[in-house]
Amino acid sequence: MLTRIDHIGIACHDLEATVEFYKATYGFTDAHFEVNEEQGVRECMLKINETGDGAASYLQLIEPIREDSAVAKWLAKNGEGVHHIAFGTDRAVADEAADIAGKGVRVLYDAPRNGSMGSLINFLHPKDCHGVLTELVQKA
Amino acid sequence: MLTRIDHIGIACHDLEATVEFYKATYGFTDAHFEVNEEQGVRECMLKINETGDGAASYLQLIEPIREDSAVAKWLAKNGEGVHHIAFGTDRAVADEAADIAGKGVRVLYDAPRNGSMGSLINFLHPKDCHGVLTELVQKA
Repeated sequence: MLTRIDHIGIACHDLEATVEFYKATYGFTDAHFEVNEEQGVRECMLKINETGDGAASYLQLIEPIREDSAVAKWLAKNGEGVHHIAFGTDRAVADEAADIAGKGVRVLYDAPRNGSMGSLINFLHPKDCHGVLTELVQKA
Repeated sequence: MLTRIDHIGIACHDLEATVEFYKATYGFTDAHFEVNEEQGVRECMLKINETGDGAASYLQLIEPIREDSAVAKWLAKNGEGVHHIAFGTDRAVADEAADIAGKGVRVLYDAPRNGSMGSLINFLHPKDCHGVLTELVQKA
C-alpha cells in the first residue's frame, strides 16, 4: 500500500544555490546530501514534515552530474522544475511495482534500484500516469 | 512557518478519468470534489497521508472549466503533469506571503484567495522559485 508522499523531485542546474533558496526563503533546515552515480545526479533531501506512517516527506533537489543522465536531458528540454513525484510503500517495492504493472502501467526498471538515504526505488512511465513521472519508494 | 507539503497540484484533461486512475492504480480512496470558479477549475483533493502538524498531504487533480483559465493555458502548452506544489503554513497566509515577498520573491495576488476545502492561498512566481510554481496554504 502507498502510505505517503515520500518526496517531490525537483531538477535544478545548481544544487547549492537551489538548496540555499529553499533554506533562505522558507526556513527549511534539515538537509541530507548524497550522490547517486547510477542515476547520474547529486541531490539534497530537504525534510519538510513527518508523515502518519512514521516516515517523512521531503523535497528532493537534483542536479545532473553527467550530460547523458536522464535528468540532464530533461533539464535541457524543460528547464528547472518539478521532475517527478514519489510515493512511499509499506512493503517491498518489487511487490508494489509488480501489482501496478499488472494494472497495465509500465514500470521502468526490471528490478529495484538504489534511491535516496538507502531506499529501494522504481519508476512508472509518465505516459501511463497522466503525464506524471512517478516513483515508488521503499524506505531503508 | 511552513509545516508540511500541503498538496501536489496536477493538471489533467479529464478529472473523472484521472481520479479513477489514481484510485484504481494506487488504491487511494479519500476524495473531495469541488469547483473553484475564481481559478477556473474543477478539482479533486485525494488525501494521501496525515502530517506531523495535524493536517494532511493531498494530490490536487485539476481540470480547467474555462479556456481562458491559467490552468487551461498551461495544459495547452505543457500537456498533463505536475502544475504546482503547495506548502502549508501555520499562520495567516498573508503574513507568510509578506515575509517571503520581503526576500525578493514575487507573490502573485495582492490579497489571499480561496483555495481547496475552505483554505486561503497565494502563489509565488515560478521564475523566482527555480521553475516551480509554489502555493502557500492556510488551512480552513
